[in-house]
Amino acid sequence: MDKLYIIKIGGNIIDDEAKLATFLRDFAAIEEKKILVHGGGKLATRLAEKMGIEQQLVDGRRITDAETLKIVTMVYAGFINKNIVATLQSNHCNAIGLCGADGDVILAHKRKHPVLDYGFVGDVDSINTDLISTLLHKNISIVFAPITHDQQGQLLNTNADTIAQEIAKGMSGLYDTELIYSFEKSGVLLDANDDSTVIPEIRPSYYLELKAKNKIFAGMIPKLDNAFTALNSGVSKVIIGKAEQLSDLLQGKAGTSILHEQ
Amino acid sequence: MDKLYIIKIGGNIIDDEAKLATFLRDFAAIEEKKILVHGGGKLATRLAEKMGIEQQLVDGRRITDAETLKIVTMVYAGFINKNIVATLQSNHCNAIGLCGADGDVILAHKRKHPVLDYGFVGDVDSINTDLISTLLHKNISIVFAPITHDQQGQLLNTNADTIAQEIAKGMSGLYDTELIYSFEKSGVLLDANDDSTVIPEIRPSYYLELKAKNKIFAGMIPKLDNAFTALNSGVSKVIIGKAEQLSDLLQGKAGTSILHEQ
Repeated sequence: MDKLYIIKIGGNIIDDEAKLATFLRDFAAIEEKKILVHGGGKLATRLAEKMGIEQQLVDGRRITDAETLKIVTMVYAGFINKNIVATLQSNHCNAIGLCGADGDVILAHKRKHPVLDYGFVGDVDSINTDLISTLLHKNISIVFAPITHDQQGQLLNTNADTIAQEIAKGMSGLYDTELIYSFEKSGVLLDANDDSTVIPEIRPSYYLELKAKNKIFAGMIPKLDNAFTALNSGVSKVIIGKAEQLSDLLQGKAGTSILHEQ
Repeated sequence: MDKLYIIKIGGNIIDDEAKLATFLRDFAAIEEKKILVHGGGKLATRLAEKMGIEQQLVDGRRITDAETLKIVTMVYAGFINKNIVATLQSNHCNAIGLCGADGDVILAHKRKHPVLDYGFVGDVDSINTDLISTLLHKNISIVFAPITHDQQGQLLNTNADTIAQEIAKGMSGLYDTELIYSFEKSGVLLDANDDSTVIPEIRPSYYLELKAKNKIFAGMIPKLDNAFTALNSGVSKVIIGKAEQLSDLLQGKAGTSILHEQ
């Protein structure tokens, strides 16, 4: 099977023009098939502030009312997505920017929660692997904005980590798929404040041990849970690490590798 | 050759939620291959006002400074494009929304003008007919936002009428291509204020006659010039008419048909 990299890029990199440019140059240089999933960064929050729309966050997730959905659709699927695509083109990487509604590529439903109303937030149901394969086969890299749809005309704000994981799971039957979560930290850290304490490898038993000892930074747990779910669904490897070290991450020279039990 | 409709939808329809919904339902019902090109509407202007960005228009064209480019990218390629795609999906029409940077589908250059600086405005150089054909072949209708790129990383604001014309020209070698400009009026009118004075057919000699007698409303001349250019480049027919009459326009029962000399 051909190799496929699904690379998630975090918000803090999106907000830093120089770091983003370097990251995209490195992404463009990858010779294998590749997909980029981007988050939103602070631009949506800043735009909402300018427009006098109040933002609510619960458990780190934005409550997406109708006005907020408008803003994230504009910022994520418009401004950020199209600028990333144009930059990749200038680096001789043919890329196409999609949200989940495009080609019905990510089908989701509005989140149901017994107590909380998250608003227009989507949980992913399925991935259109046929369209993704067709584009990859034409040597087009896909850039996903974290917006999905419900096939009933409703766009939905969707967690980018989850989208990356679902695409990786969906594509793992067709490609030897690796999932990379790249962000501002060097990997999974033993000490959240010390970037030199990267754990090079985590396997399931060690993860349980780390969690039991409360050694995992709370914000990292959903990422690691996602990583193990992906691994259990056919993804060959998950790597977590610094966006500026993308080529080292892919070569196993940096970051944290999430692997099956030996 | 299979039939292909390239349909441009004007700004006033975009701004009218009910009319847009009806138009998209009619568009979705077209059985032949189809492409939609949308303009911007007033949403970009309203957003710019909210954000305190002053807009300049020269000869009916927006001067696109860096801040305005951000806004049109967000509104056209983000909000409008993705909502149209989601609505088409809900009408069982598989659609994909693209700007010119996506898949390098519309290559343009920044407009050079001896006196005026239009800012980040693009004039189209070429169309990637291969990607368009691949998507159409998969029964995916393409929805184009009026944003192109220069392959150097720069997005460019581009006239939607021109994009529709260039796509029609480019595709006319592969499909029996008809170009439809749909907007709020019933067609090309003899009296700009009387919607019942639609001219059913215009051929080149009659167009010259109408222009000589100043019977063509100034705002219509670029549209008609574009129409004849398209016709001279292989497009089989150009139709100008009311968005609410889309199926009648395609059947030649409404609007103005622009045709070759008999």
